[in-house]
Amino acid sequence: MTRYVASAELVPRVAAGETAAIARLMSRAEAGAEEAREALADIYRRAGRAHVIGITGVPGSGKSTLVARLARMLREEGSKVGIVAVDPSSPYSGGAILGDRIRMTELALDPGVFIRSMATRGAMGGMARAVLDAVDILDVAGFTTILIETVGVGQDEVEIAKASDTTLVVSAPGLGDEVQAIKAGILEIADIHIVSKSDRSDANRTLVDLKQMLALGVHASAKTEWAIPVLGCSGLSGEGFDEVVQAVRRHREASLASDLGLRRRSRIAQFRLQKTAENLLAQRFARASASLAPALAARLLDRRADPYSLAVELVTTALREDADERV
Amino acid sequence: MTRYVASAELVPRVAAGETAAIARLMSRAEAGAEEAREALADIYRRAGRAHVIGITGVPGSGKSTLVARLARMLREEGSKVGIVAVDPSSPYSGGAILGDRIRMTELALDPGVFIRSMATRGAMGGMARAVLDAVDILDVAGFTTILIETVGVGQDEVEIAKASDTTLVVSAPGLGDEVQAIKAGILEIADIHIVSKSDRSDANRTLVDLKQMLALGVHASAKTEWAIPVLGCSGLSGEGFDEVVQAVRRHREASLASDLGLRRRSRIAQFRLQKTAENLLAQRFARASASLAPALAARLLDRRADPYSLAVELVTTALREDADERV
Repeated sequence: MTRYVASAELVPRVAAGETAAIARLMSRAEAGAEEAREALADIYRRAGRAHVIGITGVPGSGKSTLVARLARMLREEGSKVGIVAVDPSSPYSGGAILGDRIRMTELALDPGVFIRSMATRGAMGGMARAVLDAVDILDVAGFTTILIETVGVGQDEVEIAKASDTTLVVSAPGLGDEVQAIKAGILEIADIHIVSKSDRSDANRTLVDLKQMLALGVHASAKTEWAIPVLGCSGLSGEGFDEVVQAVRRHREASLASDLGLRRRSRIAQFRLQKTAENLLAQRFARASASLAPALAARLLDRRADPYSLAVELVTTALREDADERV
Repeated sequence: MTRYVASAELVPRVAAGETAAIARLMSRAEAGAEEAREALADIYRRAGRAHVIGITGVPGSGKSTLVARLARMLREEGSKVGIVAVDPSSPYSGGAILGDRIRMTELALDPGVFIRSMATRGAMGGMARAVLDAVDILDVAGFTTILIETVGVGQDEVEIAKASDTTLVVSAPGLGDEVQAIKAGILEIADIHIVSKSDRSDANRTLVDLKQMLALGVHASAKTEWAIPVLGCSGLSGEGFDEVVQAVRRHREASLASDLGLRRRSRIAQFRLQKTAENLLAQRFARASASLAPALAARLLDRRADPYSLAVELVTTALREDADERV
């Protein structure tokens, strides 16, 4: 049995880069443990140095292959690399093909790499909070580059990929129309577009489509300091990954050289405050409404009253009880 | 130009089955229009007769083909059929293959069928509310069977499929591992499992897998009144759809003959109250916190304070302002 160590004691051990301490504090962050709150506040105040890279794409786009390659190349350049994967199909959680799994196992044996897989279920609502806490823990532990991998399906997942200094969106050639359609919402968040499987004959079509989309300015927004590149790479031939790493570096430099980076971090701070507040509000509401909801739901079932009127009653009563409790 | 008609005036026209009135009231429900609130309350109190069928599956599983077939077969039996599709890849919103689109166009020309496509973006947060309002509107308009089609990706979409009297989960043989992995969360909500593309040689494997899963009782829960069937069907050969319609009818009968149906409706009422209340709470909080958040986010950006402490400050202050406003 392992002795219980207070979260406050874990912080200096995290700062010393101790793997077991990192893993433990992450688990407590993920569980939303009250005991860990002050320690995580401490972590937050110390963090902010690492380059955080979000990588997203639809299932089957080749995200995990890219993450593994990037991690290895960044390692070779001397970076300590943290990986936080929020992806039900990621190789850490069991969905992917054997090749990915082997690549990941190699990485996992490297002490300069820390891999954390997060469940999308269960952590629901608090997922963004848990991921960003994990990033801060890795940051304080001395990881200089942190990769967040999320599957580009679902608003939460897309928002998490956006909450990074540099966001990569991976597209694969030849995915079915139906899978591509889900993707529509994630193209606009890219700082760098990657077309995977560029050895395939239909990859050029995907490259051209993305470039045309950018040329049309559909997703241009205010990114004048940064021209979004579209890069191909192939896990099969190994081509293109050098260019991806270079583009990531160039985006980092552009972010630090202009107010691009600060604007991004400011937007992330707003997002993080909002998510944390929403999470807290939902918890308070759930606690205050638990005893009230069943009777109201029974009136709804009978169709004696309508959902909106009952919701007003529930919210108003629950907030009053919550306020009374806090007086 | 069309004259603006008050929502209250639309209700009797909806009840008379007038297509334009149905479409207008749905748009107002989707937009969350305050003016429509009393009319929707009225609609809710009158609704509750239709058989609501939820149909879900991952992209490419063949949901839309099943929906089109079911709709046509139910029409032939004399039902008036409403379809509410919440699916970025659905043929109504542009993602699907030509064959589906043609099938749907035929259906759309039938006055006994009403098809409504809902955007998943924009309606975020309020999507469940908007879908269930649309179902009630169709119910009051005399549609006896209402199909809700949602892509089985994302918690909101899965919850909507569950908020029906009978839930069908569609699996396709031979989808990639990565796509299948997303599916894991939706298998447990099925009242009826459908394996599409049953003409394919690998379909039997999928049928057997699902049956084994059910035999192992992994997702059995308390459904003793109902043995979950696993049925194959093929859009290509047309085989299997009769059995699907029969299974849907049997589930309806089992629901009405035992307290299975009442328990289900009771759970839906709880879900609906909760979603409506969460939506209302989020709106109130957004309004009350809008002026407070920027200053707090700036302190977060500087890492002078941590997310949790600032969230507590934001929530507490916003709720106090909201309460003061209501005194």
